[in-house]
Amino acid sequence: MIAIYPGSFDPITFGHVDIIERGCRLFDRVIVAVVSNPNKTPLFTMQERIEQILTATSHISGVEVDCFSGLTVAYAKSKGAKVLIRGLRAVSDFEMELQMAHTNKTLSEEIETVFLATSNEYSFLSSSVVKEIAKLGGPIEHLVPDAIASLLKQRFNAG
Amino acid sequence: MIAIYPGSFDPITFGHVDIIERGCRLFDRVIVAVVSNPNKTPLFTMQERIEQILTATSHISGVEVDCFSGLTVAYAKSKGAKVLIRGLRAVSDFEMELQMAHTNKTLSEEIETVFLATSNEYSFLSSSVVKEIAKLGGPIEHLVPDAIASLLKQRFNAG
Amino acid sequence: MIAIYPGSFDPITFGHVDIIERGCRLFDRVIVAVVSNPNKTPLFTMQERIEQILTATSHISGVEVDCFSGLTVAYAKSKGAKVLIRGLRAVSDFEMELQMAHTNKTLSEEIETVFLATSNEYSFLSSSVVKEIAKLGGPIEHLVPDAIASLLKQRFNAG
Amino acid sequence: MIAIYPGSFDPITFGHVDIIERGCRLFDRVIVAVVSNPNKTPLFTMQERIEQILTATSHISGVEVDCFSGLTVAYAKSKGAKVLIRGLRAVSDFEMELQMAHTNKTLSEEIETVFLATSNEYSFLSSSVVKEIAKLGGPIEHLVPDAIASLLKQRFNAG
Amino acid sequence: MIAIYPGSFDPITFGHVDIIERGCRLFDRVIVAVVSNPNKTPLFTMQERIEQILTATSHISGVEVDCFSGLTVAYAKSKGAKVLIRGLRAVSDFEMELQMAHTNKTLSEEIETVFLATSNEYSFLSSSVVKEIAKLGGPIEHLVPDAIASLLKQRFNAG
Amino acid sequence: MIAIYPGSFDPITFGHVDIIERGCRLFDRVIVAVVSNPNKTPLFTMQERIEQILTATSHISGVEVDCFSGLTVAYAKSKGAKVLIRGLRAVSDFEMELQMAHTNKTLSEEIETVFLATSNEYSFLSSSVVKEIAKLGGPIEHLVPDAIASLLKQRFNAG
Repeated sequence: MIAIYPGSFDPITFGHVDIIERGCRLFDRVIVAVVSNPNKTPLFTMQERIEQILTATSHISGVEVDCFSGLTVAYAKSKGAKVLIRGLRAVSDFEMELQMAHTNKTLSEEIETVFLATSNEYSFLSSSVVKEIAKLGGPIEHLVPDAIASLLKQRFNAG
Repeated sequence: MIAIYPGSFDPITFGHVDIIERGCRLFDRVIVAVVSNPNKTPLFTMQERIEQILTATSHISGVEVDCFSGLTVAYAKSKGAKVLIRGLRAVSDFEMELQMAHTNKTLSEEIETVFLATSNEYSFLSSSVVKEIAKLGGPIEHLVPDAIASLLKQRFNAG
Repeated sequence: MIAIYPGSFDPITFGHVDIIERGCRLFDRVIVAVVSNPNKTPLFTMQERIEQILTATSHISGVEVDCFSGLTVAYAKSKGAKVLIRGLRAVSDFEMELQMAHTNKTLSEEIETVFLATSNEYSFLSSSVVKEIAKLGGPIEHLVPDAIASLLKQRFNAG
Repeated sequence: MIAIYPGSFDPITFGHVDIIERGCRLFDRVIVAVVSNPNKTPLFTMQERIEQILTATSHISGVEVDCFSGLTVAYAKSKGAKVLIRGLRAVSDFEMELQMAHTNKTLSEEIETVFLATSNEYSFLSSSVVKEIAKLGGPIEHLVPDAIASLLKQRFNAG
Repeated sequence: MIAIYPGSFDPITFGHVDIIERGCRLFDRVIVAVVSNPNKTPLFTMQERIEQILTATSHISGVEVDCFSGLTVAYAKSKGAKVLIRGLRAVSDFEMELQMAHTNKTLSEEIETVFLATSNEYSFLSSSVVKEIAKLGGPIEHLVPDAIASLLKQRFNAG
Repeated sequence: MIAIYPGSFDPITFGHVDIIERGCRLFDRVIVAVVSNPNKTPLFTMQERIEQILTATSHISGVEVDCFSGLTVAYAKSKGAKVLIRGLRAVSDFEMELQMAHTNKTLSEEIETVFLATSNEYSFLSSSVVKEIAKLGGPIEHLVPDAIASLLKQRFNAG
């Protein structure tokens, strides 16, 4: 079975990697799919984010990295996927995710959303938190892979 | 892949059936496992609940019904299952379920908990709600399969 | 329009009185309806609770006090009421109340549940909190009408 | 009794229509009042939104459509209304709405906020969700009246 | 400054020890105060719980262990304490704790409740969870001090 | 012991003053530290906000007012502070604050976050709410000190 793990991944964190590892134990293939959102200005380009995910997940088998625009359920169908994977951290996550899952269900009955609980260790972690700390010059090596920590530091020093 | 859907199912509702149907689309076999809890006095005996689940899920392929006592993760291992399925309805569910998932993770790294969002239509529904309405003589045909609705009515009229 | 304000009122608090006052500004008649629940052992008898509510609401016009057993929506219909009033204090209230409102909607389309936000001043207050403090000998005059404060003290001193 | 149902309605959805229908069963007149917010750029102009609401509610008697700027409680008073109607979908709604109700209470004691639970069927629905799906070319006929679905499609195709 | 950390501690867990360690960094003396609740039947006697806490906190300076019945604020005053310490894990905790803090504030203006966030590592942990796992024969050495783990096993094997 | 109370204070409200008063009962010195955030455009300049806080807290002993940029934990260390104070109003606050506290804990083990429950009376209050009401010409004298109410009115009349 093919599963899609959609997100912005701007950048990928250890929390995302944790969800991908769990997803790969459950499904034959997990496609990490970076959403192209024309309304947001990401810190890293689509190409950079795809390369970061490839590096951060090179130790996991069964992972593919891709990008898409448009409806997530339409993309899932085009890939022959029947499952969307979403990580849950906190209650506020949960409500938004439940809304999205119900909306997607009205758009496509055959696509199922599966929620995995982010590891306790990373339950406070988000891409925004990482960027905020990096911008303020704080340590981020415990939050993202080394290669991405370096890139973040470069980006904010140059900024 | 084998998945366990543990619960009290006292009795099984359309909300549970909805989760079982979704689980069976995702995993090869779903074992609906009735927990034997010596501290609670259920309305229906273990044998009655197993028969009710068999009836209510006879239209779904890939379902087995079983019962167990002890730790859920220990039972899952004994069945060769790597996945626990849990339905999520509301925020209060979510917190308790997250606590349970994190606890189970500390007991067994290899068992993964997968959360499915209960269909919008049944998001208010629980076994307790059904029993409460039946006890007060209200209609429950839209909440549980017909056979179980009849059993509930008999039980409360006789009570 | 007639509205029902159902509850245990064991005993009525200033939080309940606040909701009744608001309800009476919105609807022609508000029936405060004490639920008779054979599974619970209340601190005060039905008769005592009805008298307490009558005393506590004697300054409000348009209030009636009654009791009922069975389904709330069935009781509402028997009274020609189209509205149930419920007070909301906190998030945990909200979820349970939403579940009840949706359940009632499936039992009777024509009965509407209307939620009123309990005054900020009483947002922490419940009958259980009052009984707990009274049992431990603490002051409760700021939480319930004087007559009820006296009754609570008698009850727990005699206990 | 006159009730105000304030909001952005950019555009009106079946969730809003559901709340208006319920409101009209409770109160003599319901004024659907579109808030003019100079800080936001709506998708539809005030005039367009008013026309959309008129179309979407033409089957309900007792509805008026209006617009206002400034404090909601001041507008309510100018209309002789004593009630604000608000729909509740999820916990996150609830907290913001409770904050607003308490704030309004400090601004005007005599205006009461009444919360109605959005129908289960539309509990995931918001104007933002509809616009997001329409922008991505997905189906929205089950979320908004036909006339508005057409307008949304035109808007995003032209964009 | 003297702080009270009240609770049932039936038994003390690593989550409680974490809060006590943090409390002792903030306040001169922390009195771990076991509440005597005549309505509950604890697993361990008051004397056993006090000894368990003494053992579990012997490495922390500034800790005292005591027990009390009655109102927490009255006990705090009798000890010359101006602070109550409470651990926060999840949203459901938070609401109940906020209710208790507001109630206590109405009982005694001069007693302040201070909330500390339980370490991420123990955010899922409670005395009930530990007892549940122990009863079912699962491992608990990562959740409570060794001495208490042994006592729990004895208790449930003998039971 | 020195505690930091960080925030935007744009402007300071009675809710903030309430937290500062409580903090000063617990700790020897409380530094109210205005965060300089280059990404946001505040209504009042840093200098104006510092003066407003000085005025609003002139009746409380043990308060200092300062400003900082960069990581809060780094600032706290530079001041020799071991405590961060945060006010909690609602569940949505709580989740964000818990995330921040856990993040800060990973950045600096020795800095402790202490949460205080905002007084019931101000539980709905935030700087944004005050600015919104002021902008719409509503009364704000019950929400902020008189001097700040005047400044807000000037600002929005001139705007």
